Amino acid sequence: MKSRIVLRILSRVLIIEAGLLCLPMICAGIYHEDTAPFLNTIVILMLVALPLAWPVKDQKIRSLRAVEGFVSVGLSWILMSLFGALPYVFSGTIPFYIDAFFETVSGLTTTGASILTDVESLPRSILFWRSFSHFIGGMGVLVFMMAVMPLDEAHSLHLMRAEMTGPVKGKLVPRASDTAKILYRLYIILTGTEVVFLCLGGMPLFDSLCTAFGTTATGGFGVYNASIGYYDNAYLEMVVAVFMVLSGVNFNLYYLVWLRRSFKNFKSEELMVYLCIIGFATFTIACNIANRVGGFLHGLRLSFFQVASIMTSTGFSSVNFDMWPSFSKVLLVLLMIIGACAGSTGGGTKVSRLIIMVKTAFTELRQQASPRSVQRITLDGNRLDELTIKTTHIYLMMYASLVVLSCLFLSIQGIDLISTFTSTIACLSNIGPGLGAVGPAGNFAFWNPAAKLVLSGLMLLGRLDIYAVVMLFSRHVWKSLLR
Amino acid sequence: MKSRIVLRILSRVLIIEAGLLCLPMICAGIYHEDTAPFLNTIVILMLVALPLAWPVKDQKIRSLRAVEGFVSVGLSWILMSLFGALPYVFSGTIPFYIDAFFETVSGLTTTGASILTDVESLPRSILFWRSFSHFIGGMGVLVFMMAVMPLDEAHSLHLMRAEMTGPVKGKLVPRASDTAKILYRLYIILTGTEVVFLCLGGMPLFDSLCTAFGTTATGGFGVYNASIGYYDNAYLEMVVAVFMVLSGVNFNLYYLVWLRRSFKNFKSEELMVYLCIIGFATFTIACNIANRVGGFLHGLRLSFFQVASIMTSTGFSSVNFDMWPSFSKVLLVLLMIIGACAGSTGGGTKVSRLIIMVKTAFTELRQQASPRSVQRITLDGNRLDELTIKTTHIYLMMYASLVVLSCLFLSIQGIDLISTFTSTIACLSNIGPGLGAVGPAGNFAFWNPAAKLVLSGLMLLGRLDIYAVVMLFSRHVWKSLLR
Repeated sequence: MKSRIVLRILSRVLIIEAGLLCLPMICAGIYHEDTAPFLNTIVILMLVALPLAWPVKDQKIRSLRAVEGFVSVGLSWILMSLFGALPYVFSGTIPFYIDAFFETVSGLTTTGASILTDVESLPRSILFWRSFSHFIGGMGVLVFMMAVMPLDEAHSLHLMRAEMTGPVKGKLVPRASDTAKILYRLYIILTGTEVVFLCLGGMPLFDSLCTAFGTTATGGFGVYNASIGYYDNAYLEMVVAVFMVLSGVNFNLYYLVWLRRSFKNFKSEELMVYLCIIGFATFTIACNIANRVGGFLHGLRLSFFQVASIMTSTGFSSVNFDMWPSFSKVLLVLLMIIGACAGSTGGGTKVSRLIIMVKTAFTELRQQASPRSVQRITLDGNRLDELTIKTTHIYLMMYASLVVLSCLFLSIQGIDLISTFTSTIACLSNIGPGLGAVGPAGNFAFWNPAAKLVLSGLMLLGRLDIYAVVMLFSRHVWKSLLR
Repeated sequence: MKSRIVLRILSRVLIIEAGLLCLPMICAGIYHEDTAPFLNTIVILMLVALPLAWPVKDQKIRSLRAVEGFVSVGLSWILMSLFGALPYVFSGTIPFYIDAFFETVSGLTTTGASILTDVESLPRSILFWRSFSHFIGGMGVLVFMMAVMPLDEAHSLHLMRAEMTGPVKGKLVPRASDTAKILYRLYIILTGTEVVFLCLGGMPLFDSLCTAFGTTATGGFGVYNASIGYYDNAYLEMVVAVFMVLSGVNFNLYYLVWLRRSFKNFKSEELMVYLCIIGFATFTIACNIANRVGGFLHGLRLSFFQVASIMTSTGFSSVNFDMWPSFSKVLLVLLMIIGACAGSTGGGTKVSRLIIMVKTAFTELRQQASPRSVQRITLDGNRLDELTIKTTHIYLMMYASLVVLSCLFLSIQGIDLISTFTSTIACLSNIGPGLGAVGPAGNFAFWNPAAKLVLSGLMLLGRLDIYAVVMLFSRHVWKSLLR
């Protein structure tokens, strides 16, 4: 294999994972819990990572090709999940490995779907690792790697492209490693600010940290069985909801505003549409549930929290929305599919892809009405090239095909159609809860091991914008890599 | 309005509808039933049609633009449905006009979704009109118009393109009116042959005629409440199933085989995929239901009939498949979305669009793996141009958007999600029955009038490949027409 660079990247990722595992180990120390599950995993990671890096000499490395970028990212995420599952198994909290793997993938991909029926019984260090895995996966571990161990420029760009989500990917500043640093700085500031606001509302520091990890990474693992509903506190709900909405915004926008120190000339169609959808959904669902929850204002509180949670693909819940009327449920499923903004930590197909889809459809109609005119599609005033449009269409069709194939496979187990369908959507869009058996009051424990592996695959596909994972199964890619 | 040609076409279509209504009127005479509902409708049609044609002088007509073709076809279908509903209202069998409109649209678009709870109580002439409307809509009334009252060439082509379905549309022979004649000849031969086979199996002539109309048009209206299940006869079920499969094939293929009098050099990827999907679905569903229906062989009989009925968008049923296990139901819903071959009388998104979608996705992956290579997409050995691919993608996205918007609207009524979703799919793909409340044992009567109008709209959108109907709502189109 000539692509030794891929091995070097994988080795680095595993070393970083070992480093990050020190935090839950320290947490175990603080709370006088068993540190062995984490220590053992760290030792195993180092034993695997060091030989992987060995055969590569830095000076021999040529620049990374796009396909190697995709493969590196895909393999990194799979390896991280395989090893990240070990603390659950070693601690005996999730003894069956496939369950632990599902839980880890769900954490890293910021999905938040769980196979645990009682999270309150877990040790604090395991709860911390569970929520911290959201934080690691939210902005991407390869982006983190670039921030702390810069590769040369030609490598970094392809890795970043493969790990970031959305139809159009760019760097904020000329150097990819600087972009990575800026993104992580923003991400940490956002998380820290939320911790402060939550503590001010009386939430204990440990809960605040875990909740903030789950919020800014749009993950959704909570530390109580009733999720945020446990606190039954309007202030805390609103803080979490607002930070969920903020985390669903393209992080590039924050940087641009910060750089210019003003909102002047600020233009983002995606942000406008994103906020409009949240506003529309919050209002209509509040109207729809008002009768059942005792008034429009209380409906508005529940509705805003749930819309923010689902649209940003976080998956926290303050109430069992599976009991809401049909209209609210259909709208929530729709929000699951749409998802957050590109370049955010959120999942789904992304608002910008929705915009491109709608614009191409209308342009096509105008073109048919006056065939000789030249129709252009623009986003934020810039013309979109044909390739971006085509790739967006293909992405959307792949998303739909994955939903279909997964539903077909999962349905063999004979679970009802709503639970089957929403399990698929909840995993592929990295949401967490769905409807029916996987609703806010349920969990994913009932799926058989094969189904859990398929759902884990969907979470990875969703987090890595499909391509990076699909490429691992392509004969062409391996031919090109091993050549 | 300078586009007077559109008015002339509409006038002709209404005159043809009046002519076609003579058949159920004769049927009423034979069975000593009331002929007045049909006679009154014929008189009203003539009173509307004749003044419409008046202001146009033939020599002044210039050639038809593509957009006028779409608008003519869209308006023709709406007008035909509006007037075709009158016999139901006049006879008192469906007193509420919106219900009658729904039933007529369902007939003409070969959907077969019904609001009637007891079809066995209807007069024979009304049952005949119900099934005959399938026959009229199956191959298209404008194609029929071209066969009997030829327009000049430039007009016909655009009309034919707008009424035929599928991603690639062409003429069989140089003149469009000759193509129309050939298509209708094949269509009548197919229907006649089925009538003969059904009569040989002991089915009464009236039932055979109505069943054959429902089969070759892939409609699905039956003359008994239990649909084909009423006869409980394996021979009849197999005759109907085989003719459903034959009707879901592109009619151009029959002509080509007939012309060459051999299957040599015969190549159609779409037909191969279509037959493979039917084979795969029949086999897997038979395995899935074998335990419940007492053996694999009986399962195969039920499965083949149902797969053929759903895949071709006919909608006949021999058993209540809503009681089948999840896997069978998911697969049937998938077949509803895929549908039959392009250029057949069947609905759905068409097998050829599925092929194009899958091929573009794989080509895109190969392109990403080796960016400098040139990847081409071919169908039956011919290279597909970028425009066809783009239009196919946009069609599929419009289909998905319509499903989403319709589900959202229908869910306001608060019916369960499965019934809401499958009502949408069953209408947009022109199937007929769905699952849950609209399953084979149910009907569409419970929807409120607004929902019935939306579902009627979906049936028209599905039958006319979306464009012809959507264009009627475009400001650009009306500007261009009235200019």
